[in-house]
Amino acid sequence: MSTTQIDGVSVNTQASVYFDGKCVSHGITFPDGTKKSVGVVLPATLTFNTGAPEIMECVAGSCEYKLAGSDAWLKSGPGEQFSIPGNSSFEIRVTEAYHYICHFG
Amino acid sequence: MSTTQIDGVSVNTQASVYFDGKCVSHGITFPDGTKKSVGVVLPATLTFNTGAPEIMECVAGSCEYKLAGSDAWLKSGPGEQFSIPGNSSFEIRVTEAYHYICHFG
Repeated sequence: MSTTQIDGVSVNTQASVYFDGKCVSHGITFPDGTKKSVGVVLPATLTFNTGAPEIMECVAGSCEYKLAGSDAWLKSGPGEQFSIPGNSSFEIRVTEAYHYICHFG
Repeated sequence: MSTTQIDGVSVNTQASVYFDGKCVSHGITFPDGTKKSVGVVLPATLTFNTGAPEIMECVAGSCEYKLAGSDAWLKSGPGEQFSIPGNSSFEIRVTEAYHYICHFG
């Protein structure tokens, strides 16, 4: 079961645009100050770097991802998530739009 | 002064992707049920059709737009807005990412 809606948050009106628009996200802030983002990765193969640790939760579509130091491409679909350590990176391979919630920390 | 944040809303986690990703938006719902969206148009010239009337409010970047039946390209920048009648259309020309709030009705 994937998360279709997040209630009671503040949304940043300005999007973050990465890789010429292959990834677009909007930041959200919870009443307790927690920040997350909702976004989409369009068909592409991209490498993302992390600052803080991240959890990528798929809400629609799917991706394959490969963490730094791994040789394995793993699939992630709706309701599934994967974790990326801080100060690391991961490759993501998308053939149908991958819609996600990014949780930090 | 542009609107940088919208508070106390529900956000749809799945984005709407138009024109192969040249426009990406996330729907938001207010406590009273009002629906709007926050989105971005990347560099492109696109034609949008309206169902309900829309007000496009620029929060960052800029665009030029031309309403159906008009010959005039008009510019819209941060803090500015323009209105499109229902069941109509407009062309939009973007050279730097145009970030917007779309108000319906």
